[in-house]
Amino acid sequence: MKINYGEIIAKVETFDIRFPTSLQQDGSDAIHTDPDYSVAYIVITTKSGKKGYGMTFTLGRGNNIVCCAIETLKFILENKSVDEIYQDFGGFWRKLTSEPQLRWLGPEKGVLHLAVSALISSLWDLWGRLERKPVWKLLSDMTPEFLVSLIDFRYCTDVLTKDEAIELLKKSSEGKGKRERDLLDSGYPCYTTAAGWLGYSDEKMIELCKKYMNKGFNAFKIKIGQNLESDIKRCKLIREIIGYDNVLMVDSNQIFDVQQAIDWMTELKDFNILWIEEPTSPDDILGHAKIAEALKKYGIKVASGEMICNRVVFKQFMQAKAFEYCQVDSARIGGVNELLLVYLMARKFNIKVCPHAGGVGLSEMIQHLQFWDYVSVSGTKEGRYIEYVDQQHEQFVHPAIVNNAHYFPKMSSYGFNTELTDDCVRKFAYSNGEKWQKLFNANVFPRPS
Amino acid sequence: MKINYGEIIAKVETFDIRFPTSLQQDGSDAIHTDPDYSVAYIVITTKSGKKGYGMTFTLGRGNNIVCCAIETLKFILENKSVDEIYQDFGGFWRKLTSEPQLRWLGPEKGVLHLAVSALISSLWDLWGRLERKPVWKLLSDMTPEFLVSLIDFRYCTDVLTKDEAIELLKKSSEGKGKRERDLLDSGYPCYTTAAGWLGYSDEKMIELCKKYMNKGFNAFKIKIGQNLESDIKRCKLIREIIGYDNVLMVDSNQIFDVQQAIDWMTELKDFNILWIEEPTSPDDILGHAKIAEALKKYGIKVASGEMICNRVVFKQFMQAKAFEYCQVDSARIGGVNELLLVYLMARKFNIKVCPHAGGVGLSEMIQHLQFWDYVSVSGTKEGRYIEYVDQQHEQFVHPAIVNNAHYFPKMSSYGFNTELTDDCVRKFAYSNGEKWQKLFNANVFPRPS
Repeated sequence: MKINYGEIIAKVETFDIRFPTSLQQDGSDAIHTDPDYSVAYIVITTKSGKKGYGMTFTLGRGNNIVCCAIETLKFILENKSVDEIYQDFGGFWRKLTSEPQLRWLGPEKGVLHLAVSALISSLWDLWGRLERKPVWKLLSDMTPEFLVSLIDFRYCTDVLTKDEAIELLKKSSEGKGKRERDLLDSGYPCYTTAAGWLGYSDEKMIELCKKYMNKGFNAFKIKIGQNLESDIKRCKLIREIIGYDNVLMVDSNQIFDVQQAIDWMTELKDFNILWIEEPTSPDDILGHAKIAEALKKYGIKVASGEMICNRVVFKQFMQAKAFEYCQVDSARIGGVNELLLVYLMARKFNIKVCPHAGGVGLSEMIQHLQFWDYVSVSGTKEGRYIEYVDQQHEQFVHPAIVNNAHYFPKMSSYGFNTELTDDCVRKFAYSNGEKWQKLFNANVFPRPS
Repeated sequence: MKINYGEIIAKVETFDIRFPTSLQQDGSDAIHTDPDYSVAYIVITTKSGKKGYGMTFTLGRGNNIVCCAIETLKFILENKSVDEIYQDFGGFWRKLTSEPQLRWLGPEKGVLHLAVSALISSLWDLWGRLERKPVWKLLSDMTPEFLVSLIDFRYCTDVLTKDEAIELLKKSSEGKGKRERDLLDSGYPCYTTAAGWLGYSDEKMIELCKKYMNKGFNAFKIKIGQNLESDIKRCKLIREIIGYDNVLMVDSNQIFDVQQAIDWMTELKDFNILWIEEPTSPDDILGHAKIAEALKKYGIKVASGEMICNRVVFKQFMQAKAFEYCQVDSARIGGVNELLLVYLMARKFNIKVCPHAGGVGLSEMIQHLQFWDYVSVSGTKEGRYIEYVDQQHEQFVHPAIVNNAHYFPKMSSYGFNTELTDDCVRKFAYSNGEKWQKLFNANVFPRPS
């Protein structure tokens, strides 16, 4: 691929953007009871004035810590030639994730990796804009050799080497053009989580299920895990509404210990549940493997990934058969470069990627990887969905497009779909934005000290 | 245990303290090439003026991010009754690690968990001062039932339940008095890492080995992993100096992929190496297990832990036989409460805890856990060492006491040995401290923007 843009990164700006979603209990689950959906938002500007936008998602409190991490890391980007970055993006990615002093704070996990993710996404957004392509198309047009140069294989060569990855991509290249046209025509299927947040009443859940069925959805996910009796009641209720032809998933957001997850799900075995998502700690590979094994006889699969911290842990989930559905998140691990490796490993292990997208900007970003996977890697949509929650999409200049329960790519939105509207930044900047000032003045939220 | 102090936490202050250790290459290894040893330092003060000091260790850059996380978390401590905290410390620990919005940034790992660790250590220091006991003695004097109430067993009940933990502690209680006297008389053995930092010349290494042999050390650890030829040369050299009666360990600080670690260590098999430390990513449980299995035939054991992020990952290292030496760090996982569980799980799996202590304050803190383990848990010092590096101890009001290659407890230093001297805080506060201002003025370090 020819890289000759001649751009230098002049500045990296960081914004703490928060939405007061806890007011409506949107996004509430067994563990995260009152999230204020937020993003640590980045604008990079080149010397000639070109822009790239990046972000990572958080639940409100602590978004400032991620912003602080971005501010501390950004010296690695500033004054760099973008040509040098894209010519050896795998090497640059390692530089960013392995800064010898900062590495101690991870490595490659938590706050620091969220910050890396935001920075990396701004570089991909910029790249797509420079190439006048959406990121999924930029990826799909790369040669296998070049694509693989974007990836740092460190700690994963025991399951996938660079050469094997090139072979996988070459094998999948047949039929790419046809799949690309299909994608543009038919889109990519999604499921909805928005009907079953734990804080919602039964009435609200019923109303929302009907709304989404009318919109063409055939797969629904609800939150469980605080009260078994109430979970049974909710499962019954939702099955009455959606019937048994539609798909039902449940999500317990890490509330259980290993044996408890097995026991709880055994009580729900008659509801034909496709997957139990996050039954326990996202760090517990062996625990997930035990749960997956125990629930096999009920046809309940294990799904996890939104809080799996990096490719090394994903690798082991795959090695240990700890999940059947890989729900990688676009903004928790180190951005597109690391995501590529997770998708390639999933291909090797024949694991379905059904990415996490419940959060601000996560749909906008992850759709690119899933589109690329269909066109260039797995070559199939069979049994796969992208998550969909219709919150905060209106804050984006180019929001994800979802029609009839399918995501649709748009050739004319260049980059990574990560740009927020100016209006959004003005209103929701924390804590000086207009919306927050109003909420503080009305004593709805305490003014931060 | 009677808890009736009547103290309320009035304030939590945070200090960014950094030492310019990169000037001498102290602490340098294959991955961390130029550390400036640092601590995020906490002073809590009760309404009546009682103090507790806490800290976590970092390598310099990013220490500000940890301070930012502490500032964001501290609202959970402020204005709390210390009696309520200590009466249900396990519950309080979960509140601190599971704050519903902040949890997203972890969970229980990275920057946020480092911050938790620092806050928790300040509470233990305060508790020891209130009880007029060192923390190890405070722990050793607790009943098994009360001790276990300090622990959050979430995600670990599949390998150790509360009741099993009580049983373990009861079984180990015989002979406690005798072991306590032995500890006070004979101390606890340590090994030295200080002779073999990667950035040191051969001459410096030889000189330091001789110095530590003269001080009574019989176990030596050197850094490896940048160059195989040079590692062979260094191993030969150090064996010539220390002979084959003394113990040699090597540490590669995560530089290798799985197969590479096996191949590299095979080349060093003739040097009678006790352990290879951190052969690969600290997140790679299955990778470590594979390395441990492959190196068994050479008698080389695997050690890891200083960057293992929490109890859930420790649990799996033990389940998978991924290490034989558990090198837990006092300030990376969530403080004493979580450390107790790691020690108890190690007891159950018969794994030796040889804790990490290469960093500011790490010796001062971890000695308490190791002393407690000897008196109350494992009941033995056999084949166990605490790491020792003689750096920055002079910055402490009550530094760890090491004589003749043994740590010695001191009954009269109450608390957790975490208080820095006023002089240290004045000199090394970043970036306004006297020492830093001098270094900026002399252009030895760039002034931060």
